[in-house]
Amino acid sequence: MVLPFDIVEYQKRLKQTKEQMESRGIEVLLITDPANMNYLSGYDAWSFYVHQMLVILIDEPQPLWIGRYQDANGAKVTTWIYDENVIAYPDYYVHSKEHHPMEFIADILKQIGQGCRNIGMEMDHYYFTGRASEILKKSLPDAHFMDATLLVNEVRMVKSDQEIEYMKTAAKIADSAMKMGVESIFPGVRECDTAAEISYALIKGTPEYGGEYPAIVPLLPTGDQTSIPHLTWSDRPFVEGHAVIIELAGCYKRYHVPLARTVSIGQPNEKMKQVAPVVLEGIQTVLNFAKPGVTCGELEEVWRKTIKKYGYEKEARLGYSVGLNYPPDWGEHTASIRKGDPTILKPNMTFHLIPALWFDTDGIEISETFRVTESGAECFTTYPQELLIRDHLDLNGRIS
Amino acid sequence: MVLPFDIVEYQKRLKQTKEQMESRGIEVLLITDPANMNYLSGYDAWSFYVHQMLVILIDEPQPLWIGRYQDANGAKVTTWIYDENVIAYPDYYVHSKEHHPMEFIADILKQIGQGCRNIGMEMDHYYFTGRASEILKKSLPDAHFMDATLLVNEVRMVKSDQEIEYMKTAAKIADSAMKMGVESIFPGVRECDTAAEISYALIKGTPEYGGEYPAIVPLLPTGDQTSIPHLTWSDRPFVEGHAVIIELAGCYKRYHVPLARTVSIGQPNEKMKQVAPVVLEGIQTVLNFAKPGVTCGELEEVWRKTIKKYGYEKEARLGYSVGLNYPPDWGEHTASIRKGDPTILKPNMTFHLIPALWFDTDGIEISETFRVTESGAECFTTYPQELLIRDHLDLNGRIS
Repeated sequence: MVLPFDIVEYQKRLKQTKEQMESRGIEVLLITDPANMNYLSGYDAWSFYVHQMLVILIDEPQPLWIGRYQDANGAKVTTWIYDENVIAYPDYYVHSKEHHPMEFIADILKQIGQGCRNIGMEMDHYYFTGRASEILKKSLPDAHFMDATLLVNEVRMVKSDQEIEYMKTAAKIADSAMKMGVESIFPGVRECDTAAEISYALIKGTPEYGGEYPAIVPLLPTGDQTSIPHLTWSDRPFVEGHAVIIELAGCYKRYHVPLARTVSIGQPNEKMKQVAPVVLEGIQTVLNFAKPGVTCGELEEVWRKTIKKYGYEKEARLGYSVGLNYPPDWGEHTASIRKGDPTILKPNMTFHLIPALWFDTDGIEISETFRVTESGAECFTTYPQELLIRDHLDLNGRIS
Repeated sequence: MVLPFDIVEYQKRLKQTKEQMESRGIEVLLITDPANMNYLSGYDAWSFYVHQMLVILIDEPQPLWIGRYQDANGAKVTTWIYDENVIAYPDYYVHSKEHHPMEFIADILKQIGQGCRNIGMEMDHYYFTGRASEILKKSLPDAHFMDATLLVNEVRMVKSDQEIEYMKTAAKIADSAMKMGVESIFPGVRECDTAAEISYALIKGTPEYGGEYPAIVPLLPTGDQTSIPHLTWSDRPFVEGHAVIIELAGCYKRYHVPLARTVSIGQPNEKMKQVAPVVLEGIQTVLNFAKPGVTCGELEEVWRKTIKKYGYEKEARLGYSVGLNYPPDWGEHTASIRKGDPTILKPNMTFHLIPALWFDTDGIEISETFRVTESGAECFTTYPQELLIRDHLDLNGRIS
């Protein structure tokens, strides 16, 4: 199998990770976040529903992959690490009341002389459970444990040119899926029918580049549920006069470019007509302001002042760092575009700017994913940045 | 919104959960597994990428939902619990370095007088992190903490008639998606094209019943990767002479019916021709043997003896309890069909029997999801139980 990046890039990532380990005094880093495992080794499989781990030793050139027996072949073909560094636990450790994979892993760490070192764990990452942490601590009583939450995620924030290329491909996929989704919406069509069209386009990809599963399924809250952003689709039919929010992400080589739009079925009501231009002006103001040296907190301030002119305010964050990921989230959990966030923008950082406004019974979402350039910001997708209107009188299905 | 079950059914589930709590001496149960949150309250949203919780108090008739501010509306419309039992934390707790949602939750528990009780946590469930556990323990020093892993999952094992009905609908969706997937396979078609067809069918569902996102994406290892069950699709084209394994699940009201088949592109090789009948005989023997009173371990024994006649053995488990779930797994993590598992089959338990055989460079998977009846076992899907052959000479795309 061909790795998505050349080995020099993986080694650079590993070096940067080790620099972070060194600065925090961590000698052994236990990586359980599937995105971080992929970032450093290339490992890519839907196996994160069982315990697995990448171990980085500060003084070893190669990571260790430790996981389930039937996934070991996958580790051999999808990573750059040597086969002898792929270690498998037997199947009786899987979802068992008697055996836990972390006992196996602790034994390995002891056998290779790492049992009394400074060990960093990703304490607040998905798939690293409370029990996993407790078993490792109990089984390695001579180790000193440290919290390495977000250590690798912070290394991930500034993308390489190859990563940006993959995001550009993901953006093409996002654009085409949004088009398919929007054009499928008519009164009487079910939400699940549109979700199916979107998923089809996301996974099929383009003729040159196959799509992948995004870390979040397409979200399409509709009608009075546009105030509830994380409901998934139902089989209710769309209704004339309702709005539909579509939030999706194109994904390529596990890199995501999210994109949200709001669609009015028939002519929008007065409130939508008032709110949409405010959101759009806010987005443009933020994109015009973004450049290296500015902080995420300053982006939020610019947004806040813009919408305040029209009497609006927003409680939730406006956006977040985005890129490589696995379910359940495409966000990187590092920088958020919100009040006081001190993250300083650098070239090739990538953000999903989603300054949604939600009210009691409705809401509007229009978003852009952008890259920080040498002098400003550049959007990944090209889909029209506007409130979309589906007029059912247009029998050709074109947006009137 | 209409709940998928009537309130009497939710109350019965809550009562059974409280009986389990009582027998273990747990007074406060903190539920973070999205499937368990849904099972007891109805809550259904893609919000499990932030910390959230359902709190069951042994002496209160209603659970508490605690989650992110922007998800609170979703909790109000998708659950049977009163609006005043829906408690939201502000957005600055989300993916923050300064604030953690579990601090907020611990404060609530203290405020309502639960800070010095016996508190059960789902220590080894997805989305309950090491740090979440540590913060709760530190913030509630007078509480006594207990491990409640799988407590609710065990209650979930025996399905109600309504749950079985939903699984029957999921089975129809699984059958139609398998048909779409298999019929899309031709030499030159890309893996992602077939994955797109399958996903389309899974999400669209039937004309009467809309489909939902399954907890695992369609898996379709191909060629020499049929030995690597958890690789996801790529954009490589299918090749004459290769095999493709399709593993998918239909999902309805979050209930899953998984289904796996192996497809040979062109005539199968000698090994496939030898192995397929062994797997099929094994499946039939297990299905014929399954009935109330038999243990999961005995099912494995029957399988082992059947395939041993032909000189085969299998390291991994043969199957597992299945039903309601969210990503990243549709398995219930309770019973496994493997050596020594003491689970006694009862009517309306449901299992995915997937006795895959993997070799160094290939493998075969044919599976059935079945329900234990009063006197035996009944398969949910009707898709032909055989090694499927796609002969590319049939230009109508029919299986020859």
